[in-house]
Amino acid sequence: MSGSREISPLTLNRLSVYLRCLRDLQSLGVDRISSQEMADRYHLSSAQIRKDLAYFGEFGVRGVGYDVSSLAERLHALLGLDVEQRLIIVGMGHLGRALASYPGFNDGSFRVVAGVDIDPKKVGRRMGHLPVYHRDELRELTERTGARIAVIAVPAAAAQETLDSLVAAGLRTILNFAPVHLRASDGVRLKNVDMRIHLEEIAFHLGVGRDDLERAEG
Amino acid sequence: MSGSREISPLTLNRLSVYLRCLRDLQSLGVDRISSQEMADRYHLSSAQIRKDLAYFGEFGVRGVGYDVSSLAERLHALLGLDVEQRLIIVGMGHLGRALASYPGFNDGSFRVVAGVDIDPKKVGRRMGHLPVYHRDELRELTERTGARIAVIAVPAAAAQETLDSLVAAGLRTILNFAPVHLRASDGVRLKNVDMRIHLEEIAFHLGVGRDDLERAEG
Repeated sequence: MSGSREISPLTLNRLSVYLRCLRDLQSLGVDRISSQEMADRYHLSSAQIRKDLAYFGEFGVRGVGYDVSSLAERLHALLGLDVEQRLIIVGMGHLGRALASYPGFNDGSFRVVAGVDIDPKKVGRRMGHLPVYHRDELRELTERTGARIAVIAVPAAAAQETLDSLVAAGLRTILNFAPVHLRASDGVRLKNVDMRIHLEEIAFHLGVGRDDLERAEG
Repeated sequence: MSGSREISPLTLNRLSVYLRCLRDLQSLGVDRISSQEMADRYHLSSAQIRKDLAYFGEFGVRGVGYDVSSLAERLHALLGLDVEQRLIIVGMGHLGRALASYPGFNDGSFRVVAGVDIDPKKVGRRMGHLPVYHRDELRELTERTGARIAVIAVPAAAAQETLDSLVAAGLRTILNFAPVHLRASDGVRLKNVDMRIHLEEIAFHLGVGRDDLERAEG
């Protein structure tokens, strides 16, 4: 990726959030919405919405707002979701098996096509309809299935080694769910998913943070 | 939560991200960092960092930056992480069991104290050291353990019913991993976790979005 064309992960994350809000609005039968209404309803920043969308050439009409369906389709395409992407999941423990059957990973935009493990009791079997292959078969599996995304769901201690074999097999887009922060080599797009961040987000409202917050805002 | 004191989920998420970056810097032995260096290293916005931290009374010193350790401690406390919060996990399938043993859910700030299920084959057993109780025992379990956070890891079809029992048992802080968007009643803090958003974020770079993006930026 050239530096000048880099979109920050935070922006991408916001675009995904907007798309999800728009899908919700569609399900509620809402045709048009202003940035302010969208901000109020979903606790977002209206200025940020306008700025993010204007960057991609989308401008709401004053007094009328955005067309919900056309904006949703535009974001859907912009996020690359109009072509089915095939995934493989490495590590068929509890987390790998949960992700393999996760609806959002198998919904038309994405499809899990294979599991990978090194456990002889798992390799060669099907686990919940998903065929499981050995890590040594990664390159052939990638070429045959056309998978371009790999999900790492192995224990922390095996994560770096797993990443190395994925890169060696030609995979360049990798989502790491193992509880360790991996670093990507050049040309590899790697996202470390830390599920604890969600806990922190809600715990904030329970904790001692309250006092601090009141001081900061008082 | 009163409206005036509400901090947006996006801001909280960013504070968690900053804390994670600071922890990484600490592990690398970095003592001080400017907002610009932090932005460059972690692909964040330096203006956003300054704005978010200034809101909580933290100002970097020009030419010197922020003190990494003291800022990390401040955010740690602000996010309520200096008191151990106990969690219960409802739904002991693959996802629930993966979350029960997830290191970030058991690290000093958080601890999973019990699992809950309705399957007679699971209730009354220990699953990976975690005792599993029946959903009917929720209120007593909550009172006895002091758990204030519940994690929903049941199938989509059972999620609403699960949420209702949690609220009836007095739990008010709930993280929903079931693949369905639940709505919280008043006084309940609910976060719906959608793991697909991470896939969308990396798929963006693979997809057709590329052309759109070049047009938008060209």
